[in-house]
Amino acid sequence: MDGAAYLAAQREKIDRFLDETLPGSDSTLHEAMRYSLLAGGKRLRPGLAVAAYEAVEGTSQDIIRMASTLELIHTYSLIHDDLPAMDDDNYRRGKPASHKAFTEAIAILAGDALLTLAFEVASQPGVLANDISEGTRLQVIRELAEGSGSFGMVGGQAIDIESEGMAIDAKRLEHIHKHKTGKLFRAAVRIGALMGEASAEQLDLLTRYSEDIGLAFQINDDILNVVGARTKLGKSTNSDAARGKPTYPAFFGIDASRQKVKALTERAIHWLESFGLPAEPLRAIAIFQLSRTS
Amino acid sequence: MDGAAYLAAQREKIDRFLDETLPGSDSTLHEAMRYSLLAGGKRLRPGLAVAAYEAVEGTSQDIIRMASTLELIHTYSLIHDDLPAMDDDNYRRGKPASHKAFTEAIAILAGDALLTLAFEVASQPGVLANDISEGTRLQVIRELAEGSGSFGMVGGQAIDIESEGMAIDAKRLEHIHKHKTGKLFRAAVRIGALMGEASAEQLDLLTRYSEDIGLAFQINDDILNVVGARTKLGKSTNSDAARGKPTYPAFFGIDASRQKVKALTERAIHWLESFGLPAEPLRAIAIFQLSRTS
Repeated sequence: MDGAAYLAAQREKIDRFLDETLPGSDSTLHEAMRYSLLAGGKRLRPGLAVAAYEAVEGTSQDIIRMASTLELIHTYSLIHDDLPAMDDDNYRRGKPASHKAFTEAIAILAGDALLTLAFEVASQPGVLANDISEGTRLQVIRELAEGSGSFGMVGGQAIDIESEGMAIDAKRLEHIHKHKTGKLFRAAVRIGALMGEASAEQLDLLTRYSEDIGLAFQINDDILNVVGARTKLGKSTNSDAARGKPTYPAFFGIDASRQKVKALTERAIHWLESFGLPAEPLRAIAIFQLSRTS
Repeated sequence: MDGAAYLAAQREKIDRFLDETLPGSDSTLHEAMRYSLLAGGKRLRPGLAVAAYEAVEGTSQDIIRMASTLELIHTYSLIHDDLPAMDDDNYRRGKPASHKAFTEAIAILAGDALLTLAFEVASQPGVLANDISEGTRLQVIRELAEGSGSFGMVGGQAIDIESEGMAIDAKRLEHIHKHKTGKLFRAAVRIGALMGEASAEQLDLLTRYSEDIGLAFQINDDILNVVGARTKLGKSTNSDAARGKPTYPAFFGIDASRQKVKALTERAIHWLESFGLPAEPLRAIAIFQLSRTS
């Protein structure tokens, strides 16, 4: 299976859902929400959720909706990360960042609104009655909140910001990566698994997969930040180094970093052994992420 | 019944719950969350939720927890509103605003984390099994998200920010008030009612109460902003006028604004007629808000 093709197929469903779900451009705020959310992107987190749901042979009609909440969260985090007071990035996905296209105030509020919308979407009644139990829906909301909150993504971002220009060690860098990126990857996979009514053992194995793939993704991002081309990433290359941000290659060099990504990917795939054929999408995404250049 | 005393009694329970629920001060982010959330405040929104729950003779053990989520949302909105890119207020509740006490980046993230925590808290399992149905819990989460999202509080804040220095009419000002403040008041009352398993008719009457009391509160805030004392409000008097923000008294004068607050309060109390004695707390809060000077 081709990971890029799989993600593209999911992306189409996710994007259609998001386009239908987002409010129209009847206000600047809603325009700003659309601007950032529908600016493209691989939809990797929703794709992981759908793939995890397929790995446990889920049957819920609601998986695309629940998977989409991860993109709402991810996009809000990008808008806030790009703000002058944070990473101060003027470009995102090849376009002016939200605070450049609109204003800082609107960018802050658009992020707030997208975060809130994620929970609104997740709490809506299912497409079919009795499709997924209400208890499972509450569990999904909890995963979403925990993965993106102060012990998850936002916590990682806070330590990242605080570490700028500081001499931190590799352990702290890994802590940042595991939270800032890793916890939302983890939530994505677990939400897919929960929507597919995974057993406790399956949930555990998929969680391990998600943690390895999340760290591999972030180290790969660090590598691409150092060696990638401006056009591919849609933002300045080596922008992390320019502002004194620690990266994995800065500690271990490019080659060892690449080795680490490879080893994590192999271990991630190893956790999927007992799932057989239905886990092909998760394997394909792991291999795709290993080879991506943007 | 004395509204101030009633709110103080609820505040104690709310503050104890929040103190126990908030993460410790193990990181700057968590410290910033505590700093703003435990800085005092009347806890009016949670108080309204508990009072509405009492009006329908609720019995859930979980009302304090659910009511507390409204304060998490309210506090996040204050942190973000105070940012330099928004209202640029350096003081809040008599202390330096979050971005002054910490940094802008930490203030943005603390707001994000408090918003996320609200949904985490709301999605946790109840104190007792079968206390409140999972369907009701999902409804509560939906009220919270709708009240605070782009069609609610955040939407109102966006229009408010965009209107600064513009010549707007009274209709637009009322639209801002009804969203920026009103929608979260509405959510507070409706969440309390849902937690108390209100009938559809009760929910409708309580919603009308909440809309009237919400607008009365905001007009009163406008009045206090013009005539109040710096020490009482903990921020500069007439700060709205100073930055060209429209207020109710600017359109209608102080006297007519006071009349409007009084008329709205009377109508709010009128909606409670059929509830009898259990609605005393809601009546007391309405009267308290009419007479408050801070």
